[in-house]
Amino acid sequence: MSAAGPQVTACVLIIGNEILSGRVRDENLAFLATGLNEAGIRLRQARVIPDDAATIIATVNEVRRQFDYVFTTGGIGPTHDDITAQCIADAFGVKLVLHPDAARILEAHYPPGALNQARLRMAHVPEGASLLPNPISRAPGFRLDNVYVLPGVPQIMRAIFNELKHRLVGGAKVLSRSVSCALGEGALAKGLGEIQDRFPDLEIGSYPYFRRNDFGVTLVVRGIERERIVAAADEIKTLIRALGGEPTEGLAED
Amino acid sequence: MSAAGPQVTACVLIIGNEILSGRVRDENLAFLATGLNEAGIRLRQARVIPDDAATIIATVNEVRRQFDYVFTTGGIGPTHDDITAQCIADAFGVKLVLHPDAARILEAHYPPGALNQARLRMAHVPEGASLLPNPISRAPGFRLDNVYVLPGVPQIMRAIFNELKHRLVGGAKVLSRSVSCALGEGALAKGLGEIQDRFPDLEIGSYPYFRRNDFGVTLVVRGIERERIVAAADEIKTLIRALGGEPTEGLAED
Repeated sequence: MSAAGPQVTACVLIIGNEILSGRVRDENLAFLATGLNEAGIRLRQARVIPDDAATIIATVNEVRRQFDYVFTTGGIGPTHDDITAQCIADAFGVKLVLHPDAARILEAHYPPGALNQARLRMAHVPEGASLLPNPISRAPGFRLDNVYVLPGVPQIMRAIFNELKHRLVGGAKVLSRSVSCALGEGALAKGLGEIQDRFPDLEIGSYPYFRRNDFGVTLVVRGIERERIVAAADEIKTLIRALGGEPTEGLAED
Repeated sequence: MSAAGPQVTACVLIIGNEILSGRVRDENLAFLATGLNEAGIRLRQARVIPDDAATIIATVNEVRRQFDYVFTTGGIGPTHDDITAQCIADAFGVKLVLHPDAARILEAHYPPGALNQARLRMAHVPEGASLLPNPISRAPGFRLDNVYVLPGVPQIMRAIFNELKHRLVGGAKVLSRSVSCALGEGALAKGLGEIQDRFPDLEIGSYPYFRRNDFGVTLVVRGIERERIVAAADEIKTLIRALGGEPTEGLAED
């Protein structure tokens, strides 16, 4: 999709064996995708990688150079399998250090004597990182350069992201409009391709759905300029009617 | 995790702008992760990538050399945004050709005259690919070398995967046992790390959970040998009791 103005891009790294084993279903990607889009940032890739230091370090170094923003989730708790902070430090070639503000936050949070060595790990960040406040369980995330390091627990990840979101610098926001109908994709394909050819500045996606006794397709038009999107959506509605279908605005899933 | 016997690995590529835009939440990864684990194949990475030819080709070529199996989902329908089959052909440096069996399957499926040019695209596969039968909507997936190309619609993806699963050659199946308790992760961390050190052949994960008026942690022990897993889980239960907690078997989410 060609766009007016520079595109601001992001990559999400979901760090955690539990997602790859199928034990836990990721709940963070869709939230981040939506939140980034609202901030005018295009999520261009996401990776789910295991709790393996070499993989985390190599992946972080690959994607932080390729995308404007990188967001990681998972692996910043107090247990032995929480290795993300150390890996980020290694990726940047800096030391993992105790952040005095993070230590103070945890000291104030735990009852006297409960801030043990393990919990104090959560106050360690790569040298030069700034803290990302955690309004729920206090142990902060952190940012180093363009890499934002968030926890994996969805409630906490969301709270931290919502606090930092307003400071992200995005480009033009991607707008979209959807039209659904009960026709098959194959009936629409030719005309739809022709509309896409006439609107190279837009991205037109075709998504079939199947439900009990019901199937059809949702056509999604995405782009920067509202007038163009409306014009393309109108052409899609005309196409659907010409093929004997009945277009409905919005997502079929709604 | 060190394991008895060779590990068989897999990577999943989820191809689709709709996942990266946040419009659609992926439902395929958790299914494939579980199904591969049952087949003794370890899902070691997953990527969500856009409907962009250069990205798809480069990613397929990177991961097909790095993992034993690659499974892609999405982009094999009849519309202009379905570019996966062509990209797989390009990645392997072969032509996209009409597969006569696929053409026959579609001819038998559609009413006379309905098998238009767009639908016939779904009978095109990279030269040398074999078909993966689709018991629902007929348009087949395909396999080329170690790359399995599946549709994105979850119901159809699952049906195709369930048909091919029995032909996958896996290694030793990863077994797991879970113990949950209402203690904080930070209280358990030291003892848990010591248990991990005594069981280097196992992978011990610590996953906090937060619910209304309820929080705690689930500890998951994974590995190949059941006796070792049981022994580690017993040590974890002893640790929990020593810290004043009450271990419960199984996942807290259950």
